[in-house]
Amino acid sequence: MSGEPVPRYAGEALGAFIAESRWEDITPALRHEARRSLLNFFGGALGVARDPAVETALRVIAPFSGPERVTVIGRPERLDAMGASFVNTIAANLLDYDDTHLETVIHPTAPVAPPLLALAELHGLGGAALLHAFILGAEVECRIGAAVSPGHYDRGWHITSTAGVFGAAAGCARLLGLDAGQCWHALGIAASQSAGLVENLPSAAKNVGMGNAARNGLLAALLAQAGYEAAPAAIEGPLGWARAMGDEPKLSRIIGGLGTHWEFARNTYKPYPAGIVFHAVIDACLELRDRVPPARIASILVEGDQLLLDRGDRPLRSERDCRVSIHHSAAVALLRGSAGVADFSGAALNDPAVAALRTKVTAGLDSNLPRGAARVTLRDSSGQTFAALVEYPRGSAARPLTDRELEAKFRDNAGLGGLQGQAEEWIGRIWALEQTESLGPLLRSMGDCSGR
Amino acid sequence: MSGEPVPRYAGEALGAFIAESRWEDITPALRHEARRSLLNFFGGALGVARDPAVETALRVIAPFSGPERVTVIGRPERLDAMGASFVNTIAANLLDYDDTHLETVIHPTAPVAPPLLALAELHGLGGAALLHAFILGAEVECRIGAAVSPGHYDRGWHITSTAGVFGAAAGCARLLGLDAGQCWHALGIAASQSAGLVENLPSAAKNVGMGNAARNGLLAALLAQAGYEAAPAAIEGPLGWARAMGDEPKLSRIIGGLGTHWEFARNTYKPYPAGIVFHAVIDACLELRDRVPPARIASILVEGDQLLLDRGDRPLRSERDCRVSIHHSAAVALLRGSAGVADFSGAALNDPAVAALRTKVTAGLDSNLPRGAARVTLRDSSGQTFAALVEYPRGSAARPLTDRELEAKFRDNAGLGGLQGQAEEWIGRIWALEQTESLGPLLRSMGDCSGR
Repeated sequence: MSGEPVPRYAGEALGAFIAESRWEDITPALRHEARRSLLNFFGGALGVARDPAVETALRVIAPFSGPERVTVIGRPERLDAMGASFVNTIAANLLDYDDTHLETVIHPTAPVAPPLLALAELHGLGGAALLHAFILGAEVECRIGAAVSPGHYDRGWHITSTAGVFGAAAGCARLLGLDAGQCWHALGIAASQSAGLVENLPSAAKNVGMGNAARNGLLAALLAQAGYEAAPAAIEGPLGWARAMGDEPKLSRIIGGLGTHWEFARNTYKPYPAGIVFHAVIDACLELRDRVPPARIASILVEGDQLLLDRGDRPLRSERDCRVSIHHSAAVALLRGSAGVADFSGAALNDPAVAALRTKVTAGLDSNLPRGAARVTLRDSSGQTFAALVEYPRGSAARPLTDRELEAKFRDNAGLGGLQGQAEEWIGRIWALEQTESLGPLLRSMGDCSGR
Repeated sequence: MSGEPVPRYAGEALGAFIAESRWEDITPALRHEARRSLLNFFGGALGVARDPAVETALRVIAPFSGPERVTVIGRPERLDAMGASFVNTIAANLLDYDDTHLETVIHPTAPVAPPLLALAELHGLGGAALLHAFILGAEVECRIGAAVSPGHYDRGWHITSTAGVFGAAAGCARLLGLDAGQCWHALGIAASQSAGLVENLPSAAKNVGMGNAARNGLLAALLAQAGYEAAPAAIEGPLGWARAMGDEPKLSRIIGGLGTHWEFARNTYKPYPAGIVFHAVIDACLELRDRVPPARIASILVEGDQLLLDRGDRPLRSERDCRVSIHHSAAVALLRGSAGVADFSGAALNDPAVAALRTKVTAGLDSNLPRGAARVTLRDSSGQTFAALVEYPRGSAARPLTDRELEAKFRDNAGLGGLQGQAEEWIGRIWALEQTESLGPLLRSMGDCSGR
């Protein structure tokens, strides 16, 4: 970049990055991470395609769908690009079982991939174009999120929704072939659509913030393509996005090392459909299960940092609460030796054996433990104690899920949606995305399947 | 309310208010204010129906429109309720020539009326149901805005968009017949969709925040009707709307005197398509014009409070800047003796006589003047000075526009859209709204007209 003019605005730098990035400069490792993200994404959406929350979103948005239709993942119904983006994003993130950029706690793929898939299906685009736009969108999303973290989320902003709309706008702008200036405007228009509240996370209103990030990001790019403009400093200006939301943005996190440093490369995938801070609790309990049979457990002490206690030491009222409960996570792991979708269902919540074991769990603070770590100490009926400490749970950046583990998770999710018969075919096609000339057949197979 | 349980949540109180309000308890004065607001609203939308910003919004949203269509004001095209809400809201607020709740600086009608009109046209509803839902929606909008004013706007939130989504959700919830609990959820879902930035006000991105307030408010009500829920304290909770946006909400402004005190009754209407703080400048200049011919003006001093200077003492780059310029407002009023839409157009911006007079204007601070007031002092070529002080401009709560003045404004706007031929018929129908059994004919006449 030496000798070139330095951008004066965050959106200006990002706009040039989005418009001018070259596919040949994207490393094989980054391309593969994008395929891993999409494999994880498709599995999550297929798994819950028949969930009542997804069906309700689909039923409400369907009457507002134009004639050019694309795939709703795991459903026979087809919707326009706006409606399909809304529903597919809701499904992909429904159980918070999707991917995680840990520093920001953003789930990068759910709000970004659906509008890109919709545009690709509509316009007959291929896998390389999709992967490229997806990488750029997810990168913009994580960078903008990083610039306002951790204050943004702590203040009550559901960052996957609020940063997701930028990612969706960026990816769509790229896929539509917008120039640098139009990409800049698309991001500024996205800034005026950024919304979503942590207070609403235990409710279906969370889904609405997520679905809107995708459909409004698409709208931002389409409006910019048609000539709509935004303020130059919509992201970082004195009355712009970051400051209105309460933050002094760290601009270097947005514009530093564009094209060389990739936040998206730090994406991780969950082995368990529970809040990320509960993964160490689950791993520690799975480890201890081999040493103490559930029937002999007298008490269970789970220790972690303040975040673990804030998020997870709370009463259980519904299925949604299971996924953010220390007590439930520990009980199913110790009792069932598993922590899959079925272990965080309404049936598991009401399982008398799980409920009985939950009452033996107490939570304690150990502020010496790093974020994301947990120590579990069992006392058996004879008074003997057994302890396990997990600093880096499975799926974390230190112990990433392997491709084989991601495939197994995909199969589980497909099975959950009753679609295991096609899982192998889909896995093969997703790994081969870069060579796919048109995404239509893959996407249509994910919609048609459900009508059989 | 004595003896009844006191609501614990803002949304709970508002939900009961929306669902349980009775038309017979709405006073004739309030019903008439609603008709005045709608007369002003329709005129504004008709006037700019052919503006490029409206045409672009229509062109981009049209492909995403389902088969059940309603009127786009002043246009032959028809869109689904979501799309029509988006475009009609953008049109009604495009020039900021719409109504004003001065304490909050909310333009109450633009984001609330369009989704209600869409539902009324679709479902064959009559004028009384529309007026009632509109009054409730605008009341909820102004109350929620008042609870976070003035900090909310000062921090960068475009309050008409951010509070407008609540008003749209509230009005739609009423018109759809939701029960108190569903209305509460609709408001909570709206909270997760609230967005819009002051930084973007000089750009088309402003339109997007406005249009979204309307279409997303409708979506919130439809999702609540279908069973979607939100957190109980989505508005005022620790990680909810008001605090995420930076405010400690004044809850008494939301729930105090519901059904007896009406914020909506404080609605006012602009005689000039300029920022509200410039109206006193214009009135003072119109008064002075009779005393000093423009050719003899040597200098013009405009004094006001800090807000006037912050908003209006800035360079002019585009047509949009005219409407928030001390210099331009003073120049057209003194030179042309008028301050209508044509006086704030691109042609007026580039009129050499206006430009010459603008250079003679200087702005000064008089912090003793109340907000909204202005003093203008002319010096003529002989050195003599002439001063006029306006504390309460035309259209303010102290000098409200009369019904006849609102009719004249409507005629001007209809003429601007080339639709003066039907103005008298529409004026009559709008005054008679309360007796209208079905809104379809009025609305269709406002669409069909433009195709002739």
